[in-house]
Amino acid sequence: MEQVIKVEGMTCGHCKSAVEGALSKLDGVKSANVDLENKNVTVDFDDSKVSLVDMETAIEDQGYDVEK
Amino acid sequence: MEQVIKVEGMTCGHCKSAVEGALSKLDGVKSANVDLENKNVTVDFDDSKVSLVDMETAIEDQGYDVEK
Repeated sequence: MEQVIKVEGMTCGHCKSAVEGALSKLDGVKSANVDLENKNVTVDFDDSKVSLVDMETAIEDQGYDVEK
Repeated sequence: MEQVIKVEGMTCGHCKSAVEGALSKLDGVKSANVDLENKNVTVDFDDSKVSLVDMETAIEDQGYDVEK
């Protein structure tokens, strides 16, 4: 399934890579694409393997705030 | 000697690390400190070992514009 997660604080290509990389490492995440302009990341994932909370934690661990 | 180099496009801690890291790798650079707010990096270097052009190139190679 696909989910758009709103994320605050991503400013540049490094931020994009950090968030996409952290999400992609999670088992069950098929793809993660950050849209810097719209301040979000679109994640395609298998919800039997990974939860929204897991993904939010991965983003927060990179130093960004998730809008819930 | 110490030089303040104006740099455009640094937005976050990743950018700070990228610029400081690239400069610190140059032989002759003793320290490099990015000031994100004031858009510059202060470099302490041995001008017999490294030139301003070398340092500017290192910054540009990270994807930032140097104001000359």
